[in-house]
Amino acid sequence: MKNILRNSIYSTFLVVLLAPVAGAQKVDGFYAAPSNLFQAEYPRISSDNRVMVRILAPDASKVQVQGGDGFCPDLLDMVKDTGGYWNLTLTNVVPGFHYYWFMVDGVRVNDPGCDTYFGYSRPTGGIEIPSAGENYYLAKDVPHGEVRENWYYSDLTGKWRCIYVYTPPGYEKEIKNKYPVLYLLHGMGENQTSWSKQGRLNFIMDNMIAEGKATPMIVVMEWGVAVDKAAPVQAPGAQGAPGADRNSFVNGNAALEQVFIKELIPHIDSYYRVKPGRDNRAIAGLSLGGYQTLTIGLNHIDLFSSFGFFSAAIIGNIMSDPATAFNGVFADATSFNKKVKVFWFGAGTTGSLEPRIHDMATNTIKKLNDLGIKTTFYESKGTAHEWLTWRRDLYQFAPLLFK
Amino acid sequence: MKNILRNSIYSTFLVVLLAPVAGAQKVDGFYAAPSNLFQAEYPRISSDNRVMVRILAPDASKVQVQGGDGFCPDLLDMVKDTGGYWNLTLTNVVPGFHYYWFMVDGVRVNDPGCDTYFGYSRPTGGIEIPSAGENYYLAKDVPHGEVRENWYYSDLTGKWRCIYVYTPPGYEKEIKNKYPVLYLLHGMGENQTSWSKQGRLNFIMDNMIAEGKATPMIVVMEWGVAVDKAAPVQAPGAQGAPGADRNSFVNGNAALEQVFIKELIPHIDSYYRVKPGRDNRAIAGLSLGGYQTLTIGLNHIDLFSSFGFFSAAIIGNIMSDPATAFNGVFADATSFNKKVKVFWFGAGTTGSLEPRIHDMATNTIKKLNDLGIKTTFYESKGTAHEWLTWRRDLYQFAPLLFK
Repeated sequence: MKNILRNSIYSTFLVVLLAPVAGAQKVDGFYAAPSNLFQAEYPRISSDNRVMVRILAPDASKVQVQGGDGFCPDLLDMVKDTGGYWNLTLTNVVPGFHYYWFMVDGVRVNDPGCDTYFGYSRPTGGIEIPSAGENYYLAKDVPHGEVRENWYYSDLTGKWRCIYVYTPPGYEKEIKNKYPVLYLLHGMGENQTSWSKQGRLNFIMDNMIAEGKATPMIVVMEWGVAVDKAAPVQAPGAQGAPGADRNSFVNGNAALEQVFIKELIPHIDSYYRVKPGRDNRAIAGLSLGGYQTLTIGLNHIDLFSSFGFFSAAIIGNIMSDPATAFNGVFADATSFNKKVKVFWFGAGTTGSLEPRIHDMATNTIKKLNDLGIKTTFYESKGTAHEWLTWRRDLYQFAPLLFK
Repeated sequence: MKNILRNSIYSTFLVVLLAPVAGAQKVDGFYAAPSNLFQAEYPRISSDNRVMVRILAPDASKVQVQGGDGFCPDLLDMVKDTGGYWNLTLTNVVPGFHYYWFMVDGVRVNDPGCDTYFGYSRPTGGIEIPSAGENYYLAKDVPHGEVRENWYYSDLTGKWRCIYVYTPPGYEKEIKNKYPVLYLLHGMGENQTSWSKQGRLNFIMDNMIAEGKATPMIVVMEWGVAVDKAAPVQAPGAQGAPGADRNSFVNGNAALEQVFIKELIPHIDSYYRVKPGRDNRAIAGLSLGGYQTLTIGLNHIDLFSSFGFFSAAIIGNIMSDPATAFNGVFADATSFNKKVKVFWFGAGTTGSLEPRIHDMATNTIKKLNDLGIKTTFYESKGTAHEWLTWRRDLYQFAPLLFK
């Protein structure tokens, strides 16, 4: 009896111990991606930006792979080998961080060799393709800040909300110092975890602060989705659970704007050692977060002094006539240029989506410049609508703030 | 041309907006699980602990469901309906937090309605089945602490390591206070995120501290896996990536013990406002973490004054002869009882695994009591080898510490 018990317990644990690692096969020139789960050999990448993906699915009839801009936006068929693995080598993958997944007999499956990242409104696999010579987003031997999970109650939505807050190196020890704040928004279908996990925000900030490039600052990352508690919206399972709201984007983020202004900023100002006032407050965001930066930021230039638009989704009529947009905020260029310290746009150049986003930025900038509004534009060469573009944006944008 | 561009951009975003929500079907007595992703209608639960799971897989030949102890440890076949959904209603599910997944034509797939949690050495879906009348683990209107992502360099393993650190309400403002520290370990295949995400540690601590039940303390959660940088172990992709080490468990966690003692504790003592010394330091862990608590803790009772074993995996020969175990730490019971303040065991009573874990605890306690060692035992009635058991353990154990 004793042996049976012990064996059962052992087997429970040993099933993990003895589970086959995803294969020890060595392939010339390919190595496990740096983002792989511990001991996972696949996906594998090469120095010439090829990626080998595979999944064990001996009983499946059809397996495909698909991923984000610059990886493989179209579904590609994979090929089954005699061992029951389905394989494909992707070529010309753009360096950076890419979401991707398999379709196994029509069902979306994350690669078991990858961690998941909140994207596409659900946990989604992802891969890091290193960009040669680019290391400002890696952990280095410098003082490190923290990323804090912090909760606040939102009466407007009737729910507790989870935010991620970067506090810089020094914040913990230099208890008399106060800090300026950057509010930083992610893209559609992502959440408050994305800027640190996909974006490596904390390492980028730590490295810039250590080099003296950026002023030590607090960075606040929000869920970015809000539904007024009075709105007739069915939202089962929304008790603080992350996800994307299919309504808030359509209705212009009105609820989110109210949450930011009336609840989030007061919470940050009271919880942390914050320098007060608009001179010490900036807002920026990527893609949908760029759209939100326009609507939240430009409706409240009394609250924010600097603005960053990273591959911003400047869609609809929102900037079709800047002269009258946002209650005429751009009408008096001299006043605007005096009041706003940084008005910054960034975009990548490649992929199937990003070039059009790039055009949105340059078209908007032209309209603004025609009105006399001063802008800054940064072009991230050779990157797509993905996180390497936005890491570079942060690396260019953050040093300009709070000077 | 302008319209084409705008339409393309719209379509990129609208594909998310218009994606069908997982079904709006209403079923009597069932509601979306509180852990579901925003707007996901499935999985659904009933007040009598039934769970409806489903997944859309019209082209699959076979779909099954499987999950953790107390949910459905055996693979169960699901049934396809005319809409292409595969369905099953599970009965007699034990309340608590359960990992589960589908097998779609033999490939493991997380439920698209769930968030993922690090378990089984990979991101794994999970569901919360509320326990009637039990609310100490929910967010309440009390002061909230934070869970901080903090990085430290480990020279022993040659890598940066990520820890999660709970700081109690008041830590941010009461800058002259120092705090005792609980080192808290998770189970096999989990990681530093598990105690806060699956375990809801921060809310449990916030609530207990608000009620005056527990002393405000810092709680440190580590990855729990370490490979000596000199060891001949292939660990591709291990650059700080979470995962389970299939070697460290076998080799007795020797590397982890060194990391804890030589690197982690000094890092915590220097980074945070910590009360020094063993009287202000406790260690506890669940399942494999209970085994690690034995090996790390009892080899160093000069460093820890209190110990918690939550459904501990007391396996192998580790406690077969307590009189000689851990260099004879239990040999002088009077001295041990004087030095150790809390020596605490907890276990649940149900599921296919937990009753055997319960026996491990009671058998070990009997041996220790025979030697004169004082112990405390808590039985979590009606819970399995899952997180509701461990939340209850924390709720019973933490109030005993640092008094």
